[in-house]
Amino acid sequence: MAMKIYDWPTGPYPARIRIALAEKAQRSRVQFVSVDLWKGEHKTPEFLAKNYSGTLPVLELDDGTFIAECTAITEYLDALDGAPTLTGRTPREKGLIHMMSKRAELELLDAISVYFHHATPGLGPDVEIYQNAEWGFRQRDKALKGMHYFDGILKTQPFVAGEVFSMADITVIGGLIFAGLVELPVPAECEALQAWYARMQERPSVKNRVTMSEPAEASV
Amino acid sequence: MAMKIYDWPTGPYPARIRIALAEKAQRSRVQFVSVDLWKGEHKTPEFLAKNYSGTLPVLELDDGTFIAECTAITEYLDALDGAPTLTGRTPREKGLIHMMSKRAELELLDAISVYFHHATPGLGPDVEIYQNAEWGFRQRDKALKGMHYFDGILKTQPFVAGEVFSMADITVIGGLIFAGLVELPVPAECEALQAWYARMQERPSVKNRVTMSEPAEASV
Ligand SMILES: N[C@@H](CCC(=O)N[C@@H](CS)C(=O)NCC(=O)O)C(=O)O
Ligand SMILES: N[C@@H](CCC(=O)N[C@@H](CS)C(=O)NCC(=O)O)C(=O)O
Repeated sequence: MAMKIYDWPTGPYPARIRIALAEKAQRSRVQFVSVDLWKGEHKTPEFLAKNYSGTLPVLELDDGTFIAECTAITEYLDALDGAPTLTGRTPREKGLIHMMSKRAELELLDAISVYFHHATPGLGPDVEIYQNAEWGFRQRDKALKGMHYFDGILKTQPFVAGEVFSMADITVIGGLIFAGLVELPVPAECEALQAWYARMQERPSVKNRVTMSEPAEASV
Repeated sequence: MAMKIYDWPTGPYPARIRIALAEKAQRSRVQFVSVDLWKGEHKTPEFLAKNYSGTLPVLELDDGTFIAECTAITEYLDALDGAPTLTGRTPREKGLIHMMSKRAELELLDAISVYFHHATPGLGPDVEIYQNAEWGFRQRDKALKGMHYFDGILKTQPFVAGEVFSMADITVIGGLIFAGLVELPVPAECEALQAWYARMQERPSVKNRVTMSEPAEASV
């Protein structure tokens, strides 16, 4: 097979790429390689040579090029068939999708990630060698505020960046997957966000994202 | 004029858009509106309605749409003339440029920003209402490590994402502009990074980025 994706099946960031792959009907073009976050396999010198930042997912092209960062991988995959559906076609769509996706990182997904790694046991003491709990709790509060923000957005439009499903929805989905893992529920009053998430979870790309890598493939 | 850019002439993130505008020869299409960071004008309800995250720059289109986030604004501007030169043409270019630009944020520019806002007086006590110095100093150290990473990259290729100038170079330039403001010099041993930065500072887009907004225009 042509492409490899280094990921961890249940990880919230890897979910972003699994969803994008399914939305683009590209599942058959990639092989998944598991990197065990709980064992800190993403912090080994071998893995850091693939991605300096030491995070999953990473895409490896058949020429050996590594592409890390969900936004970058999504840009790559979306452009591959010459018919972008996730990252926008017009300048305005591109701008709005990139803004909302980045905002979903800043105000929700990345904030929850910092909370997880800094104010909870995270991946365990061997992996979390530095923690700053105060910063972690601040980021948790920021994420809760972020949920209210996206709720407000989804009161006025069907998808995070406007009228169509896009990378920005995928990033918010990643955020809510992470929120579920750390038991940070969407506040009851965020009804529009909850209704949108219920709709999103019915999309096959979202529903089947973990099982899509079966049968289990080689580990690094 | 059709577009407005809310920015602060000497800010490192605004610099990214000023450089992109000059590279794309689009300066004449925009009007700059100053938002005084030192007075906290970016935290007022009026400004937060333009950009929830309360940061500069923000692009306002002639239909009243606001686009925040440098990456999103650059995507918009680069796509406008149908001939992208900063964000990549092929899937591989797009992937690599987005990865390296994001990495330049994570490992350099955003890290320095956190250092500035958390472990120095930042924008002053009225604006910096919460500081976490320990986190700030960690981010400073991360940025110094990031400089060594980009030095290694620039030892092997002329530009941050490969053979051509791109958004990724602009993001690293933003990082080094911020490094200059907080007096975090590029380590002497990072010779490739220093040589690249010297070349970058000779580009008219970089050299004239502050004065390009003359004559001074209306403040919000
Ligand atoms: N900015 C990265 C973040 C990726 C990320 O944080 N991934 C998680 C997996 S869900 C990870 O690798 N965490 C391990 C760690 O930070 O130690 C992206 O967008 O891809
Ligand atoms: N993620 C934003 C960051 C922008 C940013 O931090 N801008 C600075 C201006 S140089 C700012 O507004 N800082 C004010 C603050 O954080 O209080 C982007 O890429 O546009």
